[in-house]
Amino acid sequence: MSASATTADLAEVSVIALDIFGTAVDWRTSVSEQVAQIAGRTNTELSPGRFTDEWRDRYLPALEAVNSGTQPWRTLDALHREALDDLLDAYDVGDDFDETARRDLVLAWHRLTPWPDVADGLARLRRRYTVVALSNGGVALLTHLLKDAGLPFDCLLSAEIWQAYKPQGQAYRAAAELLAIRPEQMLMVAAHTWDIDGARRARLRTAFLERPQEKGPNRTADRAADTTCDLAASSLTELAHVLGC
Amino acid sequence: MSASATTADLAEVSVIALDIFGTAVDWRTSVSEQVAQIAGRTNTELSPGRFTDEWRDRYLPALEAVNSGTQPWRTLDALHREALDDLLDAYDVGDDFDETARRDLVLAWHRLTPWPDVADGLARLRRRYTVVALSNGGVALLTHLLKDAGLPFDCLLSAEIWQAYKPQGQAYRAAAELLAIRPEQMLMVAAHTWDIDGARRARLRTAFLERPQEKGPNRTADRAADTTCDLAASSLTELAHVLGC
Repeated sequence: MSASATTADLAEVSVIALDIFGTAVDWRTSVSEQVAQIAGRTNTELSPGRFTDEWRDRYLPALEAVNSGTQPWRTLDALHREALDDLLDAYDVGDDFDETARRDLVLAWHRLTPWPDVADGLARLRRRYTVVALSNGGVALLTHLLKDAGLPFDCLLSAEIWQAYKPQGQAYRAAAELLAIRPEQMLMVAAHTWDIDGARRARLRTAFLERPQEKGPNRTADRAADTTCDLAASSLTELAHVLGC
Repeated sequence: MSASATTADLAEVSVIALDIFGTAVDWRTSVSEQVAQIAGRTNTELSPGRFTDEWRDRYLPALEAVNSGTQPWRTLDALHREALDDLLDAYDVGDDFDETARRDLVLAWHRLTPWPDVADGLARLRRRYTVVALSNGGVALLTHLLKDAGLPFDCLLSAEIWQAYKPQGQAYRAAAELLAIRPEQMLMVAAHTWDIDGARRARLRTAFLERPQEKGPNRTADRAADTTCDLAASSLTELAHVLGC
């Protein structure tokens, strides 16, 4: 681990930017459950956890295709749909999932359960800081998801606003600009090394939040030990405590 | 008044869009108080209420200049600053207000007291609807203002995101698009005829919220009686009640 900052180094931070998928909410458990339910309507046999993992595997390559200009801008809902159609074909179960089922599956990403520490940690952090969601989810997705999850933020900042996905530098810089602060005044909190790396390159301060269960029992989640960051914590409540909230 | 809709007509509404300045917060009282305080630092004699009125008088023409393309895009903070510099010159008191004082005056618009019914009405509406702020204020301004005022929204939608000010149709349509709904599914709640007119032209549903004290004791606020709208109410709590919340 390279978590080297003292909280004194972070004194100029005024805004906490919290990543959502994996960092604030447990996408794998929630999506797997909804996959199982929707597949159950037609008695389609598939492993919901594995299916969800393979769906998510298509996430970073899809972002990269948009960020590189290989593909035009689309919202995360559209990327989820394209990956889903592709995956159902790969599983050779496309006929079992009609338009309604496919839409419902895409909307599964709008209903995700928060990790148990997030509501408390968020409330503590908001007492001292402006706390925003900074996510690759679209505006509609984020609004639905965070309302449903009961997680109140001071503002939702979506990649859809500036049409560039994290970890592209523009995504972090645009967020700071919209809040009229310098990048150094924003602390990015995320559970993924690629997100922390992108934020650091854009000159944000960084806090790695470990979510060892994020990828389920058969895969290893990203670890603070492998990530260069200013702070590391194992819960949002712990991070709030470290920051004096 | 032309408030002709029954609530049944509004059954497809899923999102309430609340205007902020004048509709949710009492800009005139709050800004006047801060003008008085900042002018008091240098014993500058001016009428805070009149000064605030004349500052606000420059608001709609400034928006129109941007919307028409006569002026390039700038945030509301920048427009407030330009109008302030102009007004201080017109009052011949420019020398009394240094850079710090001018910045503080612009930031006065980030600290405005809500009308007393808003917190309760907002909480009621959010139980059934997605409730967003839809304002010409910039993202930073809205985030500061609504956090300071203790008003939690499901999402803050600022003209800064799409760089078009209300009442231009693009401002309303872009808000609906970002939330992945049709314009008819959004109910614009505002205290100004020009805002209601813009929303209606963009095919949103409209609710006029009367704020008879908005412009102070010497001016007449816009009235529902002169406005074509689907609903009219005299408080956000009353509107929530009419909508069954």
